[in-house]
Amino acid sequence: MEKVREIVREGRRVGKEDPRRVVHAFKVGLALALVSSFYYYQPLYDNFGVNAMWAVMTVVVVFEFSVGATLGKGINRAVATLVAGGLGIGAHHLASLSGTTVEPILLAIFVFVQAALSTFVRFFPRVKARYDYGVLIFILTFALISVSGFREDEILDLAHKRLSTVIMGGVSCVLISIFVCPVWAGQDLHSLLASNFDTLAHFLQEFGDEYFEATEDGDIKEVEKRRRNLERYKSVLNSKSNEEALANFAKWEPRHGQFRFRHPWKQYLAVGALLRQCAYRIDALNSNINSDMQIPMDIKKKLEEPLRRMSSESGKSMKEVSTSLKKMTKPSSFDIHVVNSQSACKTLSTLLKSGILNDVEPLQMISLMTTVSLLIDIVNLTEKISESVHELASSAKFKNKTKPSKSDSGSIVRAMPNKSHDDDDDHVVTILGDVDTSNNVDQSHGEISVHSCHHVAIKIDDDDSIHEKHEDGDHIHVHTSRVSCEHTNASDLLDSGVQKN
Amino acid sequence: MEKVREIVREGRRVGKEDPRRVVHAFKVGLALALVSSFYYYQPLYDNFGVNAMWAVMTVVVVFEFSVGATLGKGINRAVATLVAGGLGIGAHHLASLSGTTVEPILLAIFVFVQAALSTFVRFFPRVKARYDYGVLIFILTFALISVSGFREDEILDLAHKRLSTVIMGGVSCVLISIFVCPVWAGQDLHSLLASNFDTLAHFLQEFGDEYFEATEDGDIKEVEKRRRNLERYKSVLNSKSNEEALANFAKWEPRHGQFRFRHPWKQYLAVGALLRQCAYRIDALNSNINSDMQIPMDIKKKLEEPLRRMSSESGKSMKEVSTSLKKMTKPSSFDIHVVNSQSACKTLSTLLKSGILNDVEPLQMISLMTTVSLLIDIVNLTEKISESVHELASSAKFKNKTKPSKSDSGSIVRAMPNKSHDDDDDHVVTILGDVDTSNNVDQSHGEISVHSCHHVAIKIDDDDSIHEKHEDGDHIHVHTSRVSCEHTNASDLLDSGVQKN
Repeated sequence: MEKVREIVREGRRVGKEDPRRVVHAFKVGLALALVSSFYYYQPLYDNFGVNAMWAVMTVVVVFEFSVGATLGKGINRAVATLVAGGLGIGAHHLASLSGTTVEPILLAIFVFVQAALSTFVRFFPRVKARYDYGVLIFILTFALISVSGFREDEILDLAHKRLSTVIMGGVSCVLISIFVCPVWAGQDLHSLLASNFDTLAHFLQEFGDEYFEATEDGDIKEVEKRRRNLERYKSVLNSKSNEEALANFAKWEPRHGQFRFRHPWKQYLAVGALLRQCAYRIDALNSNINSDMQIPMDIKKKLEEPLRRMSSESGKSMKEVSTSLKKMTKPSSFDIHVVNSQSACKTLSTLLKSGILNDVEPLQMISLMTTVSLLIDIVNLTEKISESVHELASSAKFKNKTKPSKSDSGSIVRAMPNKSHDDDDDHVVTILGDVDTSNNVDQSHGEISVHSCHHVAIKIDDDDSIHEKHEDGDHIHVHTSRVSCEHTNASDLLDSGVQKN
Repeated sequence: MEKVREIVREGRRVGKEDPRRVVHAFKVGLALALVSSFYYYQPLYDNFGVNAMWAVMTVVVVFEFSVGATLGKGINRAVATLVAGGLGIGAHHLASLSGTTVEPILLAIFVFVQAALSTFVRFFPRVKARYDYGVLIFILTFALISVSGFREDEILDLAHKRLSTVIMGGVSCVLISIFVCPVWAGQDLHSLLASNFDTLAHFLQEFGDEYFEATEDGDIKEVEKRRRNLERYKSVLNSKSNEEALANFAKWEPRHGQFRFRHPWKQYLAVGALLRQCAYRIDALNSNINSDMQIPMDIKKKLEEPLRRMSSESGKSMKEVSTSLKKMTKPSSFDIHVVNSQSACKTLSTLLKSGILNDVEPLQMISLMTTVSLLIDIVNLTEKISESVHELASSAKFKNKTKPSKSDSGSIVRAMPNKSHDDDDDHVVTILGDVDTSNNVDQSHGEISVHSCHHVAIKIDDDDSIHEKHEDGDHIHVHTSRVSCEHTNASDLLDSGVQKN
């Protein structure tokens, strides 16, 4: 009894995690009930006889969770059945020419050679990724047709019936999976990427508070909840296999929603890989939060401003990507945040050069410097991610949020709150002229859009390691010669003048 | 033509990567040729008729690369066919009681409910991991039996024949996979873990040379080859899904070689997870080697001795684990290396406290400190891995390399080269008494064994972060109050007195 209750609980959890699973179960039930009614329908049964079972079998085996997986399996199965059927008939014909004693031997050799070769081909990585199921069905159908042909003379008829029933089953699956609450693997991959950006952004935005504020021992539940929320990023660490599977399925899917047939799914994997690298750094950062508890707060506070800003601006840029992915528009204010995080890097380096940490103990220094270096890494990765996202946005032909404004080279853009849009708190960009400005802007909602600012990769002109790292990649360098960053209350300020060459 | 040549090349590569793949292909061919000859054999055919095709189908679908996977699928298929057959007959009987008009409706409902429920159950993580295939076959067989029963009256006979042919096919697969060049998933998991230890050990042992020696620009090929060799560790980063799959398969396998039926496969996953964490650190370390090129060598050289020793001793301990895993003996000298790497940590902290780096620029400091902190992390992880490996060794009942010596608490062990063993360069342990010693020992082969030294987890009694980190885990603390580490040529010295409490 306890066991049953546990199973019900588990079932509820599984269903709650993704309610589409329940729908999928109903869809499979529907398809199967539909196809097995072929058996009852007299004219159809007379036509196909016992072969109707192939329709049932096809439905059970082919119907997968997403449209892409179903379509891939269905096409694999249909094509493999067709080809193997043809070859099987050929093999049978060839064998039957050679007399009754040699025939079984010849057939056995055919089956052996075909099975061994095909099985070996299944190890090829490219075959394994997309055609594994097709090759399996090929082996199966070839063996069944060429061997069962030994008994029946109406082998052509058999092959024809089998192919039609397989296609009937496959088509039912595909139709139901497309037209009844479809689950698109492509859409899933897209959402997965967006939500991965979201979780990392959440961590980076909360990092400052977590690192610089002494934890109140009061409400343990509250603290634990926040920690759990922070550690959602852990799901990103092992997202690789999931992303790859979804991309493989997505390649089979026809146009749906805003996704074309040849949507650049490969680029999703590239962005995902960079994001995963960032997640590794965040994982290290997270374990550092705990060990850095022993560093006296007054030492940490010395670096608070740039560190807070580096993480929060990186976080904001990721949040922006996540939002624009969800809307399938080109990320716009994104680059501003990247610039801000990099200018914070520069502030940090100035601060460190001033010898602010000269009196810190070496062992505390190690710990603190690790946090610093991880954040620098994250800022650099954010830039790489920015490029990769821009590439994705242009190859996937995401829409522009609004028309680009006519920002010329050498002009400076300035963000101002703009309440005319009602769907979100957009900010409009005003061209000011060639002056170095820094404006106090209420950024309470953390969203700014600079419409003219695509592909701005920043090189901080300073002979430090940050510079060096940037030189490594093959970036498009846009000099920001007047990045100003003398503010103290950094996260509430938009302080960078972006100047395009 | 070019295409064909490419395929042949790819085939050769795939075959070379793991020659057992070629053997597997032949095995499948053999099994299929064997089973399809059932068709020709008159008495058998008369008995089973067209149902003989289920044997062929079973072979094609069930025969997997490893014994565990084949056995798992075979058992899943047989049990699912049996249960679903029984339920199918029941459903058919129930429906036939209700008259001809209601019967097809009732059957369709049964099929629908069964398919929907079972499909939903496939989403349960535990079911998905081990019984996914069984549930699939359950849906299939239930639908086929209950529906086809609508046509034939000899439904019991049908179910019986189907089950026998399935079992015939399954048994052929299992027998061939066990007795013809078997591929054991358990053995594979074991070897994978050993080779993962090996690659990480290789990196750590080479790290010192790579980091502290200026790269000669001379032979680019040589340098590239070494780099490629170093970066083998990258395969460890994404080993998770592979390890989990192998562990799932291994659970199905009977006793083979030194692996019992209930071998602690779960512990392999635990050790693997720790190793992967270590690989993440190594990945960061590797990217630091490149960015640290800009730090002047004379600054780096200041920390050379402890850093070299930390990485090489951690590497040696991993190498030792790899060797002892391969031989399935308990790792013995392992803990000595862990102790050594930790004493090097202490040397490092003393060195840093002496203010040796006071004149280093902050940005170089960040980079250098990151390397330091990563190495400290690795040393700490090595200790955790040590515990996990000891747990594995004892729960898997690995043999002792030799009899344990009678080391008492409070005594100090000392390693001396011993040439009496001929299989490898073992070192024997001598109990010396309660004195603080450090001995010059020729460790040119990097292998020492301290037979009495199990589960030595070290706490460095110093009020620094290393200590703190150790306090976090639930370790068995053995105080090493007199760890001596004042040597300069560290990697050639065995310098730690291990004192047990």
